[in-house]
Amino acid sequence: MAIITLTTDFGYKDHFTSAIKGAIYSELDEINIVDISHSVSPFNICEAAYIIQNAYSSFPKGTIHLIGIDSELSPDNKHIALKLDDHYFICANNGIMSMICNEIAPDKIVEINIHDKVETSFPVLDIFVKVACHIARGGTLDVIGKVINTIKPIKNLNPFVNDEHNQIIGSVIYIDNYGNVVTNIKRKFFENIQKGRPYIVYARNHKFKEILNKYSDIINYDDEESVRSVEGKAMVVFNSSQYIEIAIYKSNNSTVGSASTLMGLKTKDTVTINFLNA
Amino acid sequence: MAIITLTTDFGYKDHFTSAIKGAIYSELDEINIVDISHSVSPFNICEAAYIIQNAYSSFPKGTIHLIGIDSELSPDNKHIALKLDDHYFICANNGIMSMICNEIAPDKIVEINIHDKVETSFPVLDIFVKVACHIARGGTLDVIGKVINTIKPIKNLNPFVNDEHNQIIGSVIYIDNYGNVVTNIKRKFFENIQKGRPYIVYARNHKFKEILNKYSDIINYDDEESVRSVEGKAMVVFNSSQYIEIAIYKSNNSTVGSASTLMGLKTKDTVTINFLNA
Amino acid sequence: MAIITLTTDFGYKDHFTSAIKGAIYSELDEINIVDISHSVSPFNICEAAYIIQNAYSSFPKGTIHLIGIDSELSPDNKHIALKLDDHYFICANNGIMSMICNEIAPDKIVEINIHDKVETSFPVLDIFVKVACHIARGGTLDVIGKVINTIKPIKNLNPFVNDEHNQIIGSVIYIDNYGNVVTNIKRKFFENIQKGRPYIVYARNHKFKEILNKYSDIINYDDEESVRSVEGKAMVVFNSSQYIEIAIYKSNNSTVGSASTLMGLKTKDTVTINFLNA
Repeated sequence: MAIITLTTDFGYKDHFTSAIKGAIYSELDEINIVDISHSVSPFNICEAAYIIQNAYSSFPKGTIHLIGIDSELSPDNKHIALKLDDHYFICANNGIMSMICNEIAPDKIVEINIHDKVETSFPVLDIFVKVACHIARGGTLDVIGKVINTIKPIKNLNPFVNDEHNQIIGSVIYIDNYGNVVTNIKRKFFENIQKGRPYIVYARNHKFKEILNKYSDIINYDDEESVRSVEGKAMVVFNSSQYIEIAIYKSNNSTVGSASTLMGLKTKDTVTINFLNA
Repeated sequence: MAIITLTTDFGYKDHFTSAIKGAIYSELDEINIVDISHSVSPFNICEAAYIIQNAYSSFPKGTIHLIGIDSELSPDNKHIALKLDDHYFICANNGIMSMICNEIAPDKIVEINIHDKVETSFPVLDIFVKVACHIARGGTLDVIGKVINTIKPIKNLNPFVNDEHNQIIGSVIYIDNYGNVVTNIKRKFFENIQKGRPYIVYARNHKFKEILNKYSDIINYDDEESVRSVEGKAMVVFNSSQYIEIAIYKSNNSTVGSASTLMGLKTKDTVTINFLNA
Repeated sequence: MAIITLTTDFGYKDHFTSAIKGAIYSELDEINIVDISHSVSPFNICEAAYIIQNAYSSFPKGTIHLIGIDSELSPDNKHIALKLDDHYFICANNGIMSMICNEIAPDKIVEINIHDKVETSFPVLDIFVKVACHIARGGTLDVIGKVINTIKPIKNLNPFVNDEHNQIIGSVIYIDNYGNVVTNIKRKFFENIQKGRPYIVYARNHKFKEILNKYSDIINYDDEESVRSVEGKAMVVFNSSQYIEIAIYKSNNSTVGSASTLMGLKTKDTVTINFLNA
């Protein structure tokens, strides 16, 4: 059965998301609709890009991802559909796809042009659903738009490396449900610059000399006191999406606190890594 | 495959909603269950009425809509099932259906009377699910209740028009996920009174001389400064459900603010439209 | 069609939950995935235990319940799979199952040992999904782990009864979406000690002489004034899961208030019942 996923900033209260599902079921009887997230902060392209990048590849090949963030059609904001990594994506050309396209080149991008017939203030319902159902029925991208070659980028997507190659300057791109702070520095990028050298990670006035592979690596099981007192300890870790993340062990905003609340870290803040000459 | 939708004030944390889904799957193997909303404010009939009105018609004919708001059975609060516009609705007779019934007459209303056999403090699970599954299997309304002719109304559902027909006094019925403020004045109602005359929309100490057709109509693309500075601008717009709405362009409570927070508008507040003699 | 339910503390914004769903659909084309809750407070074992206990039994026999709370594998925190009451449960051995196991003995418990091949910081995705799909395809528990006989308990799960059997000392285990306050005292437990005697329920400085069977039992329909003024009244009630609950009639945190906000009751607070000699 074909799968259509939904990623929007519609929230979970309003009728918008269910209207979209109803419209899909009205066109297709046999379809799996899966929510990726509807809690993207309003109009936050960068958050949406991070979420869809880390969710899409778990789905089967052929899955259709409908992304409804900042999607009102305007001369500045066209609608596009992409085929990439054997997945389909439908969204506005506002930078959302640049995080994925940064890693994997799209096979095809079209600028949707079926709008001539549809005047709408709810394009996700009136345009994106039509495109998604067309693809779900086996239709091609060429029918619904004209091929284009590039998409709009997000600014400051990649971390910066200095000329001496002894410093990475990254930034915070996402705060997760636990208040953990995700940077734009991926493990591979880090390791390419590091080349085995020791390093210090700086986030505001905090310093870390080690990046862990998983949260519980902070526990020293040979030391009973460490096991007892580990809750609430700060660390840097490669998260499950292989981004460098500043985290609190068993983080909880309403009890021990989180990296975001305890260290005052928020989206767009700088995180720096200095490499020492070994 | 038959579809049952769910609209409740159960929230997303407690077990209530999933218990209902489990009970439906225990009765029916082949069924699509779709969440409309579980974030209705507790016992808020008006919010639920607005959400279900704007969601239901996107679904295929024959869909069964189960609405669990303020549904504990009492002498004052009976349970009903309706057929309307080829959709089915199961809810308490507490006003929730009056917004839809205001526009489309129900084909049939029954007061559910299968309770004699069921004593329960969770009627959505123990009664509504049974009724929904009965209808999903092709059962008729007559079997589960006695026909009635009217339902309980919501107070102050419709806007008021003065005798001179130069003023509409409406009120705020819903605040959406973006903090946009929805009034009870629909486009058709407005145009019937307006008859082409110029007008001023008053919301607290704010005035607007134009109602836009979509959010991005506030941008003047010939003026670069307008394009740059449009974020955070206030406007009045016909929303995608054709209600008059007071909105902020690219509204976001935690950044530029929203119509609700910036103008201090909340549910039940008055919004007035004065018509000028053309 | 087999059903897999999901109960986690992942929230509704991040990609974690949808990544799990995608991974399940990648293994199984025909499967129903149902969300029980993703709003468990981070690492809150007790909340998760209450939610899963009250949700699972509505589902058909054979349903597979995947529980992702505090599930990072460590020497202290092994992964287990259980068969109990003809349902399957997959979770960390951290106490989550002790509330259910307190009432119904498991048929089989295994400690999952397929990890030798998988190094992961996202075990719900990389381990639990594999186990769930294995069971959904009809696989047995023996293949994925070694049988164990006991699981880790939650502390202070059961209420305490004094030697004279004239006092129950319970505690608050859950605050629901309405702000209603759920204690760990079940109806059956209460009635076994009560033996028909009159009693007083104490919660902070509040006293109640009666436990109602449903919320609307607080209304006296013979007294018009009672009907009008009942909103916001405090009561003690057996909730639909048969736990003793302190509640507010038509409770709403943002209007009339809730038992939690009005009485200042929170998780782990003591609730006492004193029995009087009849």
